[in-house]
Amino acid sequence: MSPRPATINILKNCTQEGWIEQAIANLDTILLDHSHCERKAAGVALNLMFRYPSSHALVRKLTVIAQEELDHFEQVNQWLDRRNIALTALTPPPYGKKLSQEIRPNEPHRLLDSLLVSALIEARSHERLGLLGEHCPDIELAKFYRGLMASEARHYGVYWVLADTYFKRDIVEQRLEELSMVESEILSTLHPEPRIHS
Amino acid sequence: MSPRPATINILKNCTQEGWIEQAIANLDTILLDHSHCERKAAGVALNLMFRYPSSHALVRKLTVIAQEELDHFEQVNQWLDRRNIALTALTPPPYGKKLSQEIRPNEPHRLLDSLLVSALIEARSHERLGLLGEHCPDIELAKFYRGLMASEARHYGVYWVLADTYFKRDIVEQRLEELSMVESEILSTLHPEPRIHS
Ligand SMILES: [Fe+2]
Ligand SMILES: [Fe+2]
Ligand SMILES: [Fe+2]
Ligand SMILES: [Fe+2]
Repeated sequence: MSPRPATINILKNCTQEGWIEQAIANLDTILLDHSHCERKAAGVALNLMFRYPSSHALVRKLTVIAQEELDHFEQVNQWLDRRNIALTALTPPPYGKKLSQEIRPNEPHRLLDSLLVSALIEARSHERLGLLGEHCPDIELAKFYRGLMASEARHYGVYWVLADTYFKRDIVEQRLEELSMVESEILSTLHPEPRIHS
Repeated sequence: MSPRPATINILKNCTQEGWIEQAIANLDTILLDHSHCERKAAGVALNLMFRYPSSHALVRKLTVIAQEELDHFEQVNQWLDRRNIALTALTPPPYGKKLSQEIRPNEPHRLLDSLLVSALIEARSHERLGLLGEHCPDIELAKFYRGLMASEARHYGVYWVLADTYFKRDIVEQRLEELSMVESEILSTLHPEPRIHS
């Protein structure tokens, strides 16, 4: 089967069915990985605030995102506690590292690429939390995932708006086109270990 | 005049009078530096969560601190907006770097020292925001500083409790004694540029 085009506008292809089967069969690992993802999402927002401390719009909008990610992190950790899942380290899937390698090292490219890579990760998280919200057999947990979905959709919007604030629209669109191809390509082969971004 | 002993229990000496005069004469710079301090405080908490992702008590307590520091950051930035102070970079005073140099590189010393250095920075912030709350001529701003004081006092308590969770009491007390001597020594010469930790 060829990959289906995505229904979320900035993603090229939507998630293959193999991922949701893998996730549902390994819900505890997915929850633990999700906790790490939320902490990393807060870290990414904060790192950008450190790198561009004088960029007013960026600092003010990413403060809100970092706060929300920490709030998600806390909520996921409450789920871990409830299910007696210990907070342990997990090897990350190649997704994040491969995407970061696409960030060009020199400014202003570095800022543009960082914002767009974050937008794509948030959009993908939004899509996958939505799938968990639809397919998760634990009704309470499914409801929790559906609750988080809306924030992740807002987050990808914020990263896109920031890119559009600091760069010309056609440059943003062209680079997003390139990066979203890479993003879908990375996910075209299911990573054998169950992860939010496997 | 020899330095006065501190009234805050973990600090060796209290702030010299020269600091508050310098701060009041440069309130806008102090506000801007304060903004950077709050962002850094959030960064320090988050970095510790990244370094010790499986340490349950540390992760859960520092999540709350990181959230509160981001909330303070946002509040200080609203003051900057209100006073038309641009978010610009500022050279930091030597305080943070000198204290970090006291953190021994090998575990478990690294964890103990990191927690105690953070406890000392929070305690000093608590003391200095209190001085600003007492002496700041802008009544609204003075009230704002007094509002933040209580959080910083809680924060130094949390860092101390975490040190006490992971290490034997006498080891914590002995190392705190050493580090608090260094901390007061660093501040014994007023840094010529007005900063929260000058
Ligand atoms: Fe999130
Ligand atoms: Fe997010
Ligand atoms: Fe604070
Ligand atoms: Fe604090």
